[in-house]
Amino acid sequence: MTRLIPSAALLDKALPIRVWARAYSRGDFSADGLAAVIVTIMLIPQSLAYAMLAGMPPEAGIYASILPIIAYALFGSSRVLAVGPVAVVSLMTAAALGQVAEAGTADYASAALTLAALSGAMLLAMGLLRLGFIANFLSHPVIAGFITASAILIALGQLGPLLGIGLKGASLPELLDGIGAKLAAVNPRTALIGGLSLAFLFWVRRSMKASLRRLGLGPVLSDALTKAGPVLAVVVATLAVWALGWEAKGVAVVGTVPAALPPLTLPAFSPALIAELALPALLISVIGFVESVSVAQTLAARKRQRIQPDQELIGLGAANLAAGFSGGFPVTGGFARSVVNADAGAATPAAGILTALGLAVAGLALTPLLYFLPKATLAATIIVAVLGLVDLSILRRTFGCCRADFAAVAGTILVTLIFGVEAGISTGVILSIGLHLWRTSRPHVAEVGLVAGTEHFRNILRHKVITDPSVVTLRVDESLYFANTRFLEDLILDRTADDPALRHVVLMCSAVNEIDLTALETLEALNQHLRDRGIALHLSEVKGPVMDRLQRTPFLSHLTGRVFLSQHEAFATLTKPD
Amino acid sequence: MTRLIPSAALLDKALPIRVWARAYSRGDFSADGLAAVIVTIMLIPQSLAYAMLAGMPPEAGIYASILPIIAYALFGSSRVLAVGPVAVVSLMTAAALGQVAEAGTADYASAALTLAALSGAMLLAMGLLRLGFIANFLSHPVIAGFITASAILIALGQLGPLLGIGLKGASLPELLDGIGAKLAAVNPRTALIGGLSLAFLFWVRRSMKASLRRLGLGPVLSDALTKAGPVLAVVVATLAVWALGWEAKGVAVVGTVPAALPPLTLPAFSPALIAELALPALLISVIGFVESVSVAQTLAARKRQRIQPDQELIGLGAANLAAGFSGGFPVTGGFARSVVNADAGAATPAAGILTALGLAVAGLALTPLLYFLPKATLAATIIVAVLGLVDLSILRRTFGCCRADFAAVAGTILVTLIFGVEAGISTGVILSIGLHLWRTSRPHVAEVGLVAGTEHFRNILRHKVITDPSVVTLRVDESLYFANTRFLEDLILDRTADDPALRHVVLMCSAVNEIDLTALETLEALNQHLRDRGIALHLSEVKGPVMDRLQRTPFLSHLTGRVFLSQHEAFATLTKPD
Repeated sequence: MTRLIPSAALLDKALPIRVWARAYSRGDFSADGLAAVIVTIMLIPQSLAYAMLAGMPPEAGIYASILPIIAYALFGSSRVLAVGPVAVVSLMTAAALGQVAEAGTADYASAALTLAALSGAMLLAMGLLRLGFIANFLSHPVIAGFITASAILIALGQLGPLLGIGLKGASLPELLDGIGAKLAAVNPRTALIGGLSLAFLFWVRRSMKASLRRLGLGPVLSDALTKAGPVLAVVVATLAVWALGWEAKGVAVVGTVPAALPPLTLPAFSPALIAELALPALLISVIGFVESVSVAQTLAARKRQRIQPDQELIGLGAANLAAGFSGGFPVTGGFARSVVNADAGAATPAAGILTALGLAVAGLALTPLLYFLPKATLAATIIVAVLGLVDLSILRRTFGCCRADFAAVAGTILVTLIFGVEAGISTGVILSIGLHLWRTSRPHVAEVGLVAGTEHFRNILRHKVITDPSVVTLRVDESLYFANTRFLEDLILDRTADDPALRHVVLMCSAVNEIDLTALETLEALNQHLRDRGIALHLSEVKGPVMDRLQRTPFLSHLTGRVFLSQHEAFATLTKPD
Repeated sequence: MTRLIPSAALLDKALPIRVWARAYSRGDFSADGLAAVIVTIMLIPQSLAYAMLAGMPPEAGIYASILPIIAYALFGSSRVLAVGPVAVVSLMTAAALGQVAEAGTADYASAALTLAALSGAMLLAMGLLRLGFIANFLSHPVIAGFITASAILIALGQLGPLLGIGLKGASLPELLDGIGAKLAAVNPRTALIGGLSLAFLFWVRRSMKASLRRLGLGPVLSDALTKAGPVLAVVVATLAVWALGWEAKGVAVVGTVPAALPPLTLPAFSPALIAELALPALLISVIGFVESVSVAQTLAARKRQRIQPDQELIGLGAANLAAGFSGGFPVTGGFARSVVNADAGAATPAAGILTALGLAVAGLALTPLLYFLPKATLAATIIVAVLGLVDLSILRRTFGCCRADFAAVAGTILVTLIFGVEAGISTGVILSIGLHLWRTSRPHVAEVGLVAGTEHFRNILRHKVITDPSVVTLRVDESLYFANTRFLEDLILDRTADDPALRHVVLMCSAVNEIDLTALETLEALNQHLRDRGIALHLSEVKGPVMDRLQRTPFLSHLTGRVFLSQHEAFATLTKPD
């Protein structure tokens, strides 16, 4: 019977909270509490802003930052990761929901719950099935290109609320449609607030800290004031709109935010809705996971900790399920908030739980104060945040070194900008896998010879080597599998045609890591072709796993030549005078 | 101005007819004429049968064998390939058209034209863009599994006309739905004709030739009579139904076939229809191309000729376009008819043109004679033909040697049987590519040491080798690319942790054929990790193309260790006493 009770070690792994909670100290509590206060203050405007970006009502941003944080604290493996709405995932959410409902409607908010719950279920399933490796199929350049293009789309889209004009769409052509006429209809007051907010926030980010230091303030105070910069902008802008009565003059404000705890919501699970949202949910899950894991790893490495990708999937899955059942929308680990949390001294995930409590109190008590907060200021905070993500240097870096990477990143950026996020990231994945397959289907094959005075064989075109007219040695620089066997067969038949002195062909297999049935059948056919022309086929340097496989098939009994342990042995044996 | 006129050599390559027509002799004409007569006689029942399988009226089978043969003769590169309707492609055609219209309706026949024209356009485009290599992404086991499963579906479906029952569907569950009740309603006369035809045709295939030889007939006559066996079955069955008046007793017959030359037809190109048929057309194109090329290659190899896959695409594209514009349906090179054509002595593609003429005459003159031909006999010819394609031994052969191939072939067979041909072949391609990627994402990594008395390094687990506690050499048996860098990084960090004697890590790159930016960034990070722990990272046996790429990036200037030409040099240098 005891077998049915999971072992303590297993439970510790599945519920990381059991480990840190056991050793929780008063000192940890002070550190976590301070971090929680700082992160809470930072998250209030950010949650509202990303809710706006996702097309959701402002309170959804706060809800999406409460229960999901707690769920992640229970199951996640990073000690300092802060989950909640983030820019790229919010943009992807808006793109996905825009296909099924109109932003601002009840159907839209309800579909957001379904999207979050679907994404949560997928992440959880991937974690339980240990499918974290799926994220490895997104190459670094594709991720960098996708985030850059998404950030450009986000910044451009936020020009709408920033200037008080109606920009709609999830791609460059949609956003730029009729932009001239729209710009002529700018609301000057909105644009003034937006422009001042933007200028102030850029100054905060670029030079506020240094300026404060020059004014004689201490480093800690300068740092704290700089972090409070965005909140200051929000407070001043809100007071200004209220005092000047600009709401009546057409300046869009956040308006009434219900003062409430997160509601218990049941996502709609109609088959039609699930079918429509399944692919976006998968893309959001994978992108959110990749972003979150890279943040978590960066922060863990600082403290020589490690995170478990599969446990991260479970933590993020729990967070998104929590978002789906508490009035939120898809969430993931955010870079800025996690760094602030870590820098503020968060010692354990309890900091996240305390942040959630802080946001719950804010949601209950502070929402009336947010009525006059201008949307233009929120748009400014988003623009400043995402412009930091734009990094076009990836184009230059890949262009110099790796053409396939360049093609993948350029394709990802272009398709994301022109056709939107879903088409963009799908293109990136398909392009990078497709280009990889294409390259392995036309492998590099070198004819090699002996480097004098060694037992080493190198390319006859690149090195001065010894060869013999009766022996051709070809080193195939790729595993032999279905996609490249036809190419190889043609290449070897071409190389060995019209060479009357030739008696032996050696395939040097030091780079052949795998072999499949298609390749074995092709080698059999090649062996027969060569035999008909009086040429023996040999293999050398066959690796253990490949040799194991050859021995399980009849291939070796048909082989006209031998299998040599080393290429040196092959060359010495075959060139020895009879 | 002369540049605009293509050179003769180029024209010869694009229009192979220019080459063989120039040297055409009277002897060639006799040989081609005899082959054409034999193939024409064989093709009459076969064309009707495959039209029935594709859900088309009987005359469409004859039309699909006239202009397409001529188009292929002009553009194709094989001298003996005979194109026309074939079993697997006809089944795929029925499955695709069944999704857009009811078999037997005008919409169905019209959609068949669109499908053929679409497939022709795709093949032509692939040929002009030299995309013949796409077919290499179908592994041999996946093709074998797909053809086996398709043949089972075809044979089962033909039990309908064979027994005079109504079997419908494109998958096992659909075909077996209510089979018990249907079998109870068998038409006994139809079943008698079908059963006798089936028994006779199996005897023809298995033992007729040997029996005739035992009766004292010469080998040539025995062979010719055996080939005429199916025609004999058709003639006898037709006469029997006519003489016994069984049409009135419910035996389904071919009925009125219009006596006409192929009509000029314009395929419908509505965007909705094209969207629905695009994927099936692509799958039909690829499968048809793979089947046809393998037939053409087999026959060309007998005469030491070679075929050009890209030219084959153009030939098959022209044939399918011709089918689409002359009342046909998708066609490709058939195995049986091509072998008969070659065995009958066809010398040039003129045999195909003469066959087309023969079929045109037959279509004009013989169609009234086909009125009483029972469909049960056509079904029997199909069943006998496709049962020869069933080869379940591929399961045993892959199971013994290659688990990934086994998984791909088993998945292909199961999905084809349960969900139909389109899902089946897509599953096969996705499974084989997915499994290949999964394996390369978790590469084999061996720790190696020096084989005593040589300069050769092998796996310490498989060979008796010399090692040194301050040096760990890891041979990575795979290219380094985005899908496997995370796995490798983890593996190397695990291996090098808690080893205080360790000073040098050597990555032996003899099997690293490619490196991309993701891998370079990971190596940079690894280099830094190891440096922080006082361990130097070295590379050995880096191949030319990989070295070229490393030299185009700043990686080498950050590397803490060296790049050694050979692993032997690396080991000797690093283990030398200071």
